[in-house]
Amino acid sequence: MTNQRPDRSATTACPLCATPGGDVLYEDDLCQVVLVTDQEGKAFPGFCRVISKQHVREMSDLPVAGQRHILDVVLATERAVRQVQQPDKMNLASLGNVVPHVHWHVVPRWEDDSHFPGPIWASPQRVAGARVHADRERLRKALQEALNSVSE
Amino acid sequence: MTNQRPDRSATTACPLCATPGGDVLYEDDLCQVVLVTDQEGKAFPGFCRVISKQHVREMSDLPVAGQRHILDVVLATERAVRQVQQPDKMNLASLGNVVPHVHWHVVPRWEDDSHFPGPIWASPQRVAGARVHADRERLRKALQEALNSVSE
Repeated sequence: MTNQRPDRSATTACPLCATPGGDVLYEDDLCQVVLVTDQEGKAFPGFCRVISKQHVREMSDLPVAGQRHILDVVLATERAVRQVQQPDKMNLASLGNVVPHVHWHVVPRWEDDSHFPGPIWASPQRVAGARVHADRERLRKALQEALNSVSE
Repeated sequence: MTNQRPDRSATTACPLCATPGGDVLYEDDLCQVVLVTDQEGKAFPGFCRVISKQHVREMSDLPVAGQRHILDVVLATERAVRQVQQPDKMNLASLGNVVPHVHWHVVPRWEDDSHFPGPIWASPQRVAGARVHADRERLRKALQEALNSVSE
């Protein structure tokens, strides 16, 4: 796996410095938005991650402009996922206990999903209702529109 | 359910419209910061919640200025909790599946806490190491300083 680093602080031990871990929907100098495509992405179609390009543990380790930019992208991603996936609820989280490199989980939730109303990290509560995969191109387009509206 | 109390969007059925659910460390027109004092607050001393005063389900339901302000307060809270509690990691999350009224969990984590490295909503992994309660006045002061630095 090739590291892309203009990114002076990347570490070879960090999986988020090594690979985005999904389909890249959007990328700029400070972050990437990735559509999660593993089992979690199938369970919560439209699940995206917004990943800082700088390898820092906490949001408050980033410069203020970088924090704001990443949060703008997180909320643009929320809007895009809501528009395309029409979930019952959105969940946003920056945890990073296992991989301490700032990344946000942007997760659409449905009342009949496997864990609702629990967090997706709690015990499952049921077999999830059927749900089709997210349409990557529709999400990419909606995200670009949401990001354009931020910068206007 | 009766809508429309002084806070035009509050609902009597919503516990976060009815009570802050902890010690209020800070309050302004748009949000409150509350020190969690129940069992979770004892397990993760310094655990704060940042609660929107407007009763909306999602961050992207708020006006952009309100979103930014709440995120500024969330990150000021993160800085204050890091300074006073010296955790190993911070967790930030806006879930709201049970109480769909925008509120952020700002949670200090330690490698020997009950759930680390899992999210606090997953199954516990151990009996937590001993940890003293958070000092409310130190947190309040650190939060005020962090908020002042945002507005400078």
